[in-house]
Amino acid sequence: MNYESIVAFHGHSCPGLAIGYRMSLAALEALHSQRAADEELVAIVENDACGVDALQCLTGCTFGKGNLIFHDYGKQVYTLFSRTSGSGVRVLYHGDGLPAELRNDRPARIEKILTTADDKILTVTPVSVPLPEPAEILASHPCEQCKEQVMASRLQKENGRQFCIPCLKQR
Amino acid sequence: MNYESIVAFHGHSCPGLAIGYRMSLAALEALHSQRAADEELVAIVENDACGVDALQCLTGCTFGKGNLIFHDYGKQVYTLFSRTSGSGVRVLYHGDGLPAELRNDRPARIEKILTTADDKILTVTPVSVPLPEPAEILASHPCEQCKEQVMASRLQKENGRQFCIPCLKQR
Repeated sequence: MNYESIVAFHGHSCPGLAIGYRMSLAALEALHSQRAADEELVAIVENDACGVDALQCLTGCTFGKGNLIFHDYGKQVYTLFSRTSGSGVRVLYHGDGLPAELRNDRPARIEKILTTADDKILTVTPVSVPLPEPAEILASHPCEQCKEQVMASRLQKENGRQFCIPCLKQR
Repeated sequence: MNYESIVAFHGHSCPGLAIGYRMSLAALEALHSQRAADEELVAIVENDACGVDALQCLTGCTFGKGNLIFHDYGKQVYTLFSRTSGSGVRVLYHGDGLPAELRNDRPARIEKILTTADDKILTVTPVSVPLPEPAEILASHPCEQCKEQVMASRLQKENGRQFCIPCLKQR
């Protein structure tokens, strides 16, 4: 998937998207891996900024598939694991090799992020940690108040009755 | 964007993705809205199941753009707002109109979800609630331990020094 397709998904191009594009490509390369059709790959992202949309497109670790794990640390770090090989890689974007004078020239900055050599902007480190659990799918049951279906693990019990979280909040 | 393009993003077709596809189309139709290039739309999703990938593709409310808000309620509910018109819509998937005998026939179930009339599988309700705040972008500063950059709001203070969350956990 090229950068243009990722821009189409994200809605616009921006430095953050370009950063995520480079981080994700470097992670896939380090793992010698392809995009995940199912949960072959799992990613832990340490921010929820634009770049994660590039990660979703390139690695197939998507919000809806359960193989995108968010740690709200505010850091430009992605850790990608392969369930197939057991390998993991941590990619940090530091951007040290970008000329400071580009700070306020957005198009030139995007172009530079897309074309600067990996080792000038990224730190790529193999990691070995326990793999996150695969996504959980459970049956749903109705909330006793609104009657809408709720995944079993999210039903809340009160006095022997079961409610969804929004209904319980209103009681 | 058609269903096939969404399958390409998600990695595979499944009943959950088809459900999200129908929910998202119904939400956009109710709001008379197009896909969001930036934050014109904002979505609150009450689960993180497959269908949310369809929502990301169709509405442009994506994890990386900050206009996808996750409430972990385990419910098949999306609420979509237009910042342009101020309108909002809540879409619940109940699937009551699906024949029970399709429960174990996955391809037929997907096909049926994609083709059954909206009012047989969805409940669409206009809503009026305060709009969520737009995504926040702040400057980053280095963690005093690992020296890596951290978004200002995620830096943790300890004895007058500033650390990222992972470093603070290890202290």
